Amino acid sequence: MAHNVGIVGAGIAGLHLGLYLQKHGLNATIITDREPESYRDSRLLNTVAHHHITLAREDYLGVNHWAAPELHYTHHDHFFNFPDPIRFRGDFTKPSRAVDYRIYLPALMADFAERGGNIEIAKIDSKDIAALADRFDLLVVSTGKTALGELFTYMPEHTPFSQPQRKLCVGLYTGVKQADPMGVTLSVSPGHGELIVIPTVTFDGIATALLMENIPGGDLEEMASLDYESDPKHFLQTLLDKLEKHHPSVFDRIDTTNFGLAQPQDLLQGSVVPTVRNTYVELDNGKCVIALGDVHTVVDPVMGQGANIASYSAFAVGEKIVQSDVLDSRFCEKVEWARQDRILGAARWTNLMLGPPSEAIGMLIGNMAQNKALADEFTENFNYPEKQWDCISTPERIHTWIAKSQQVGAAA
Amino acid sequence: MAHNVGIVGAGIAGLHLGLYLQKHGLNATIITDREPESYRDSRLLNTVAHHHITLAREDYLGVNHWAAPELHYTHHDHFFNFPDPIRFRGDFTKPSRAVDYRIYLPALMADFAERGGNIEIAKIDSKDIAALADRFDLLVVSTGKTALGELFTYMPEHTPFSQPQRKLCVGLYTGVKQADPMGVTLSVSPGHGELIVIPTVTFDGIATALLMENIPGGDLEEMASLDYESDPKHFLQTLLDKLEKHHPSVFDRIDTTNFGLAQPQDLLQGSVVPTVRNTYVELDNGKCVIALGDVHTVVDPVMGQGANIASYSAFAVGEKIVQSDVLDSRFCEKVEWARQDRILGAARWTNLMLGPPSEAIGMLIGNMAQNKALADEFTENFNYPEKQWDCISTPERIHTWIAKSQQVGAAA
Repeated sequence: MAHNVGIVGAGIAGLHLGLYLQKHGLNATIITDREPESYRDSRLLNTVAHHHITLAREDYLGVNHWAAPELHYTHHDHFFNFPDPIRFRGDFTKPSRAVDYRIYLPALMADFAERGGNIEIAKIDSKDIAALADRFDLLVVSTGKTALGELFTYMPEHTPFSQPQRKLCVGLYTGVKQADPMGVTLSVSPGHGELIVIPTVTFDGIATALLMENIPGGDLEEMASLDYESDPKHFLQTLLDKLEKHHPSVFDRIDTTNFGLAQPQDLLQGSVVPTVRNTYVELDNGKCVIALGDVHTVVDPVMGQGANIASYSAFAVGEKIVQSDVLDSRFCEKVEWARQDRILGAARWTNLMLGPPSEAIGMLIGNMAQNKALADEFTENFNYPEKQWDCISTPERIHTWIAKSQQVGAAA
Repeated sequence: MAHNVGIVGAGIAGLHLGLYLQKHGLNATIITDREPESYRDSRLLNTVAHHHITLAREDYLGVNHWAAPELHYTHHDHFFNFPDPIRFRGDFTKPSRAVDYRIYLPALMADFAERGGNIEIAKIDSKDIAALADRFDLLVVSTGKTALGELFTYMPEHTPFSQPQRKLCVGLYTGVKQADPMGVTLSVSPGHGELIVIPTVTFDGIATALLMENIPGGDLEEMASLDYESDPKHFLQTLLDKLEKHHPSVFDRIDTTNFGLAQPQDLLQGSVVPTVRNTYVELDNGKCVIALGDVHTVVDPVMGQGANIASYSAFAVGEKIVQSDVLDSRFCEKVEWARQDRILGAARWTNLMLGPPSEAIGMLIGNMAQNKALADEFTENFNYPEKQWDCISTPERIHTWIAKSQQVGAAA
């Protein structure tokens, strides 16, 4: 069927869906309040890693403009800042890659437009939804801006927190040494939070994203509110001091004389409340509106899942649109069933990691430090959060997973 | 993992699951209160057609003992008893087959036992469940007898009726002529109910199941309570009179001098309330108990779905058991997600057909009478109730389906 689909929002979810529908010969219109030209000078949007399963979707869409091997990273280095630190490495089966979204999003908007896609620049609010839905066979909302997110009621059974679990301080920095080949570092300061170090394609080549996930009440929390602009030097010195104390393996990679934000606007501070919302609403006129991306599921960025499940979800929605003759509540139900295992896997796994580690999680960490195959599988599962959830959702599953990995190791 | 699975109930669901696990090298124990020898003289259990997708599962399990072509039927004949009757035929892509379950079930019990499966004869009640669960890694309940069904709470969103929608009168009869090749007849007497005529493998070769689906308050309802044993002649004459009036195309096939029950115990009268229950319960000891077959989903027999979705569901449970290392609530969730589209498709479609036909359903019937391809697809979809639901769940979907079939027809 020659469906005509409206997509509100031009993040990765909206763009991947628009490009997917375009590739399948369907008419898609992307509506966004951001001109492509506005990204160059905007504040840092986020720091996002694309795992290989997401890169494969970019290849499918013909939008992987950052395919050079030297832009990718191959592994995760783990560091636990105990008195006797634990370190171990886990390798992906195929490399991952991070690109500054101020580059990524306008590039995909250009791809979509050059291939004949419609991009409309407009601010959309809840009151515009009914009229907008009338223009299309299906409306997809992939932005939580203004009150659009409130269209979709949240699912209490998948939304355990009412407050942010981490206070975020994320920036793009120069002066941090990369390994060769490049890797992401996951550094944990028990009781204080995590630091995720991501080699990132920026306007000036590879820079380093420092994504600080600071536990409220801990020694690192203040980094999420410390003002940079009023006193950059003080901010950077405070950061260095905290890194030296809490994330020493990262501090050791810093050339303090060249350390600083890549650009003054490359800092973002804030927090999110992890939330899962219902897949769709049916409007009074019988039309359905589907939630996609963050407006459907917000995860804390600590496990690097948000963009990857948004892209996954875009393809799930796109596939069902292509397969379906009628875009009604039955169609929406199929979308929900198609995407729920992976999306809930990402949400549940991430939420589990935000809590204090259980004895079983502690045992898993100890075992991964001794068993490279186990660490590799944990790392590869960043592509498959539903498999990660199968491995770690309960102490019994963790024990079973470890035992199985040891058997495989013994048999090899 | 070498899971040890207990299955309460030896209907098609319990047996197909036991045989599936056995084929995959897992240890399964079937617990039933019925000795295999007790079936020969028991009252008729039901009348059940197995569509080709179920026959394929029997082939997979190596239990298709009724594979001879002459035991199968190839099509549905539809008859609507309007002043100007509507008749049309729909063909399956592969034939279906019905076997008296007093033959079928003990044969599969023998297969299971001969291959080393454990069958325990015992009456199980709710109070035995915890102790029974302790014996196994997973307990599956596939009988609704006694109060076992009450373990599983019903799902109000999928259980629209609190009362039976049809009063059933079902028997195995001699003296009804079969077409060559054989077919099932679906005869509708508007306002009074349906008659499903099924050529069935019985103890004495092919006999004819007359499954009367009588609407409460209609002229046929009394057949569901009229006593046979006290006056067989009166019963049969009343039945013949009603068939002549309401289901004349079936009456025309009857040789009244030879018409009668195949055996005195070949009559079953009663009714069911269509119900969908939750997939599992977690016991206090952390063990999960899964619902399978009628105890999970009871459909009215009018669309011939019950046994077919029970077998489907048994394979879905079996596949997940084979794939899963841990049989906990996460495992149960995966079972639910794997089987829900087909099972809910069968329940929703059947429930829709029990209601007064909408204008769109009426239009569909008229179109099927004119368009053999549409009637064939409707018939083939008895194998795929989720596809049937895609086609007919709303007037818009019915119109879209008809239009698409007409386009295909015009292009051919």
